Amino acid sequence: MPADSDMTVVLVLYDSQGLVAELAKSIVEGASSVEGIEVWDRPLDIADKDELVKCDALILGSPNWTGITGRLKHWWDYTGDLWESGELADKPAAAFSAGWSPSGGLEATLLQLVHLLIGHGMLIVGLPWTSTMNHSGSYYGATAVRKVTDLDREQARTLGARVSEYALRLSKVSS
Amino acid sequence: MPADSDMTVVLVLYDSQGLVAELAKSIVEGASSVEGIEVWDRPLDIADKDELVKCDALILGSPNWTGITGRLKHWWDYTGDLWESGELADKPAAAFSAGWSPSGGLEATLLQLVHLLIGHGMLIVGLPWTSTMNHSGSYYGATAVRKVTDLDREQARTLGARVSEYALRLSKVSS
Amino acid sequence: MPADSDMTVVLVLYDSQGLVAELAKSIVEGASSVEGIEVWDRPLDIADKDELVKCDALILGSPNWTGITGRLKHWWDYTGDLWESGELADKPAAAFSAGWSPSGGLEATLLQLVHLLIGHGMLIVGLPWTSTMNHSGSYYGATAVRKVTDLDREQARTLGARVSEYALRLSKVSS
Amino acid sequence: MPADSDMTVVLVLYDSQGLVAELAKSIVEGASSVEGIEVWDRPLDIADKDELVKCDALILGSPNWTGITGRLKHWWDYTGDLWESGELADKPAAAFSAGWSPSGGLEATLLQLVHLLIGHGMLIVGLPWTSTMNHSGSYYGATAVRKVTDLDREQARTLGARVSEYALRLSKVSS
Repeated sequence: MPADSDMTVVLVLYDSQGLVAELAKSIVEGASSVEGIEVWDRPLDIADKDELVKCDALILGSPNWTGITGRLKHWWDYTGDLWESGELADKPAAAFSAGWSPSGGLEATLLQLVHLLIGHGMLIVGLPWTSTMNHSGSYYGATAVRKVTDLDREQARTLGARVSEYALRLSKVSS
Repeated sequence: MPADSDMTVVLVLYDSQGLVAELAKSIVEGASSVEGIEVWDRPLDIADKDELVKCDALILGSPNWTGITGRLKHWWDYTGDLWESGELADKPAAAFSAGWSPSGGLEATLLQLVHLLIGHGMLIVGLPWTSTMNHSGSYYGATAVRKVTDLDREQARTLGARVSEYALRLSKVSS
Repeated sequence: MPADSDMTVVLVLYDSQGLVAELAKSIVEGASSVEGIEVWDRPLDIADKDELVKCDALILGSPNWTGITGRLKHWWDYTGDLWESGELADKPAAAFSAGWSPSGGLEATLLQLVHLLIGHGMLIVGLPWTSTMNHSGSYYGATAVRKVTDLDREQARTLGARVSEYALRLSKVSS
Repeated sequence: MPADSDMTVVLVLYDSQGLVAELAKSIVEGASSVEGIEVWDRPLDIADKDELVKCDALILGSPNWTGITGRLKHWWDYTGDLWESGELADKPAAAFSAGWSPSGGLEATLLQLVHLLIGHGMLIVGLPWTSTMNHSGSYYGATAVRKVTDLDREQARTLGARVSEYALRLSKVSS
């Protein structure tokens, strides 16, 4: 930041605890792979609320701590003014999470992230089914369980690229 | 159908029991209000699976019967081939529901509809917060409780128009 | 049926498609392992609504077909009179599901089953965390993915036994 | 605390912002109405983790801030040791929430509270349907929207009493 004025910006924002930081790398890689996209890689420690407003799309990540972390939600609670003004509405957005258990709340955590995004009026981008989802990923976003596998990275890159493409397609139209 | 080749098509598909048929009218009205959009209004009795493939966007509705109706889910279960082929992926989509109780499963029903849509890889369009949501509507879609009010109609029209605009913006880019 | 009048009855009711029938065997085995419990094993084809009223506890299963099957929901939609009368309220109840993907809607399907149960006022019994959940099972119930493993069977037996114990404890008090 | 050794204890724990404090009063009143029950009324500021272990049942409340508050989740994140040890498992538990919008995330917030409870292996107690739910309350717990009405108080008292009764019935058996 500041973004190159010709670039469409995807913000990757996450609580980096556990495997999430590693999974975020593949999200960033996938988002960056789309031409014309600039990615802002922001673990929570260096996150800046202004960037939520300035970005064209958002990918939000949290470890599965029986839902999203209190730390992330606490940070997000300060975005209430943007919720009220509707400034984040219409941006494409997606979620990712990681934890220890494949069905022990990973979907619930993704759903909580999706709830934050749709609560701001954002457009929800998930992962369509492919046979890869038999091993990794959810309709609600990218996942990793106990370690980050090659298939997890593939799904994370797919999700990152998907959000970038939507950001680009929607920003092209509006300009 | 067949659609005028210059038109972008929004399919409004719903189990018409209870208040849903009445709420659907406002969904259709809002979707039709966007120039360049053709709306297919399809209660379940005349729904045609081919139209899911042919449409550019989908708005799916169900009464709150402790979740979506078995009748709607049974019909949807025959779309498994489209889920596997991914033909519905990337279409903008939204949900609406109606019932007797404001917090007695209405959100849960909308969430089940959203799950069907995101399960096919569609892009989820909700309602951004405005003060109208203090009385009607959900982030997950349009609602009505016990009767269809003017504010319910307003939210339903907003949702219909929102989906139409996304359908138009995304189809313009791809052409 | 008729149940031995001294026995507490756990009804295991499920849409038997896919792996659910196999997982149900371990649910039944676990529920039966508790002394004083009679188990009614009922795939949907032989399910009887009267047994919902007569049983002391319920364990409900469905394949993950992007949520519960339309077939099961359609059957359940005929229990609306029991929902209105509240006859099923206060019975301990639990859920199980199986499918192809560990995070591709398995939790969402369990949550839909839980919604049916809590919608009737039943008491929701899940699985507490143990290290087994790193490989199988969810807080929302028992699971299997692609095949039924030994750990899936262990979790299913645990859930069955847990529901039986609650059924017994609560019926002892009321008698 | 310390509890009278002959009493069964229901802990009412909540982030008291907004209408939640007022709704909590009726939860406490309902829980206290059951003979043999001692209620610990604990807004988050005076909450004590040891009391989670010592209580016989828990009723957890949060405002709807697009989900539970970060403040409550942050506090809860320090209960990970109890999650791992399973010390809270098998306690009856319930949820309550309040906010500005009837279908704008109130159920989602209750569901997040329920997720915290079931994640610790607790037994989930909701509200069975009655015609009161046409105006207040959810299967997932007690609610208030914009102000606390008489029907909200009725549902909150019902939920409080319901949890007390389960706490009493289950503790009587085990003793």
